[in-house]
Amino acid sequence: MTVPVPPALPGPIDPPARLLMGPGPINADPRVLRAMSAQLVGQYDPAMTGYMAETQELYRAIFATRNDATVLVDGTSRAGIEAAIVSLVRPGDRVLVPVFGRFGHLLAEIAERAMAEVHTIEVPWGQVFPVSVVEEAIERVKPTLLALVQGDTSTTMNQPLDEIGEICARHGVLFYTDTTASLGGNAFEADAWGVDAATAGLQKCLGGPSGSAPITLSERAVAVISSRKKVEAGIREAGDVDAPDFVRSNYFDLGMILDYWGPRRLNHHTEATTMLYGARECARIILEEGRDAVIERHRVAGAAMLAGVQGLGLSVFGDVAHKMNNVVAVEIPSTVVGDAVRASMLSDFGIEIGTSFGPLHGKVWRLGTMGVNARKDAVLQTLAALEAALRRGGASVPAGGGVDAAMDVFGGTEV
Amino acid sequence: MTVPVPPALPGPIDPPARLLMGPGPINADPRVLRAMSAQLVGQYDPAMTGYMAETQELYRAIFATRNDATVLVDGTSRAGIEAAIVSLVRPGDRVLVPVFGRFGHLLAEIAERAMAEVHTIEVPWGQVFPVSVVEEAIERVKPTLLALVQGDTSTTMNQPLDEIGEICARHGVLFYTDTTASLGGNAFEADAWGVDAATAGLQKCLGGPSGSAPITLSERAVAVISSRKKVEAGIREAGDVDAPDFVRSNYFDLGMILDYWGPRRLNHHTEATTMLYGARECARIILEEGRDAVIERHRVAGAAMLAGVQGLGLSVFGDVAHKMNNVVAVEIPSTVVGDAVRASMLSDFGIEIGTSFGPLHGKVWRLGTMGVNARKDAVLQTLAALEAALRRGGASVPAGGGVDAAMDVFGGTEV
Repeated sequence: MTVPVPPALPGPIDPPARLLMGPGPINADPRVLRAMSAQLVGQYDPAMTGYMAETQELYRAIFATRNDATVLVDGTSRAGIEAAIVSLVRPGDRVLVPVFGRFGHLLAEIAERAMAEVHTIEVPWGQVFPVSVVEEAIERVKPTLLALVQGDTSTTMNQPLDEIGEICARHGVLFYTDTTASLGGNAFEADAWGVDAATAGLQKCLGGPSGSAPITLSERAVAVISSRKKVEAGIREAGDVDAPDFVRSNYFDLGMILDYWGPRRLNHHTEATTMLYGARECARIILEEGRDAVIERHRVAGAAMLAGVQGLGLSVFGDVAHKMNNVVAVEIPSTVVGDAVRASMLSDFGIEIGTSFGPLHGKVWRLGTMGVNARKDAVLQTLAALEAALRRGGASVPAGGGVDAAMDVFGGTEV
Repeated sequence: MTVPVPPALPGPIDPPARLLMGPGPINADPRVLRAMSAQLVGQYDPAMTGYMAETQELYRAIFATRNDATVLVDGTSRAGIEAAIVSLVRPGDRVLVPVFGRFGHLLAEIAERAMAEVHTIEVPWGQVFPVSVVEEAIERVKPTLLALVQGDTSTTMNQPLDEIGEICARHGVLFYTDTTASLGGNAFEADAWGVDAATAGLQKCLGGPSGSAPITLSERAVAVISSRKKVEAGIREAGDVDAPDFVRSNYFDLGMILDYWGPRRLNHHTEATTMLYGARECARIILEEGRDAVIERHRVAGAAMLAGVQGLGLSVFGDVAHKMNNVVAVEIPSTVVGDAVRASMLSDFGIEIGTSFGPLHGKVWRLGTMGVNARKDAVLQTLAALEAALRRGGASVPAGGGVDAAMDVFGGTEV
């Protein structure tokens, strides 16, 4: 047959210069991209297993944990979420999901698909849960797993987690949290907070491209995973294939993934070597600067962006006291067409800011200050461009109000 | 708490030079790694959606199909396999898996985990199925899906598929094939052969790193996927969550993935942009050289490696007439310690050759000639090194026998 070759092959990848100041993905740190351009080695090469062990150690530091079971899942952040849930939850298990935005709905959906008995509690978008409300729900539902997002980019909220682990431990509940949007830019302490499972992605504060999902699992979580059926010699040999003890996924069976990363090095998938190189470099960059220093840099950049948009006379959505450092939701003034301003930001200024989902669709823009973009010049460029785009869009904005307010936060000197 | 920072941060990624001549992963084409070092753009940036559309068109040419539903799954080749199976198979559906090696067992296991009623037929390792045996099993089992590996690296066999699609269509069976190990190095014609679903990975003949899984789906396959429950507004709103119509995975729900790649651009995962850049470049490289020319280059390189190992007096495992072009299994001579020779190949010569699994464990080495490594100098380096390593390991081998035999295949001139 005639092979339908494209009439003209497209040219090489040559993306336009963009400053990505939305809720993610953000620009990858150029060091990460350089690390990813290194040539491959075989998956059992001593160099590769060495890189794997180093990556585990680096992510223990990023998650602030001594968990041996700290590895990468080969896929986007959502792959890490699904691996955690399908491996920790048996069909019929009760799962409690406090929902304060889009990603809480995602955790609930994944747990429903995993045939858990899912219970949700909700607060309006723009709020977080008081700890007492979570505890009350745990006492009522008696779940085996609490699945709780830390930072939900859909609302910009940052759920306080520091007291949740103790409550879960007291009630014999496993505590899983999705830190995709928050890790690296906001405080997170897996061990000190009693977290049993946490997952992330590279494309937010960690400063890399999407496609690798760091995960850490406590000994309690590993014990649950280890208690599920092993499929080594063939699934039928392992027992009744309809039993709830089987993880219903091969790719996301963390028991197998841990055996691949662990000393047994049992073959599972072929590790996504280039993504591992990238994940390793993301962590190295953060730990070189210092984990706390990176979080502080995100705090300052986020505070400057917040002050800046307020300096432009814009209103901020949600409970600002519980906002993540790395993203702010700005109400779109009624005097402009939101999508037109956003399009001008991209096509005229080369700066991407974010739109919104669900109840906030069309109502707010989301501005991110994450990873390598959590820095002064990126914030000031964005505010200067936003001022210009707003004015051209028909809004009345105070001249220089955004940049001046942000500059005050950064401690810039007068010129 | 004290964050357990690694006492000394590991240095930058700096892998040793390796020539990867095993069954995969292989060295990535340097052009692919360069493409992957390009900076990111946002996932709904016109540049990004343009790259996505181009990637779809490029993989239509690679798969030889006009299927609109030709996309990437964000994960390793195994992610593509699981996405195909969980999206095409409802719990209780009958699935037929002809098993001729390790990856047939994998397809069966994934289908079992998806709660299908799985029927397998087997031939001994080193053989493929006569078409009549597959048809007979289809008539007996009456499956809704036939899941059949094309090339199984564990045995090096290449299952003929050209008549299978017609048989499946005649019996109303969907035909899925895993082409991970074979695509790009062996003939494959999705449309002409009546394939309903095919999946692949970059790390074999396509010449890239693991971490992206191209997939193509016929209209018949898309109709099955479209008939399953949509989860858009929330899973409970979508109906009875225990119904078999629900895909039990969010990440691998091809209905959602197609809506993300399609004109609706419904948000699902955050595309692994860097892996997409890599996948796009892999296809561009192949189509520049010409798809048929690349397959022919794999045929010649594979024939040269086969002649070379025979020229060294080694025996080849399996039905050579049905071997994939891109990998050969060589029986380890009883006069040497297999792992010692393989270790010397790696540590002394910088060349990786493969070990084996299952019934072949310890009995054969596997030598690959794939992607950018399906070339004369890589084959000759490998044969020269293998001769030296065998001799140093205690085997008696004809001096120059491997290189001379391979050179004859390549048509090298006397020096």
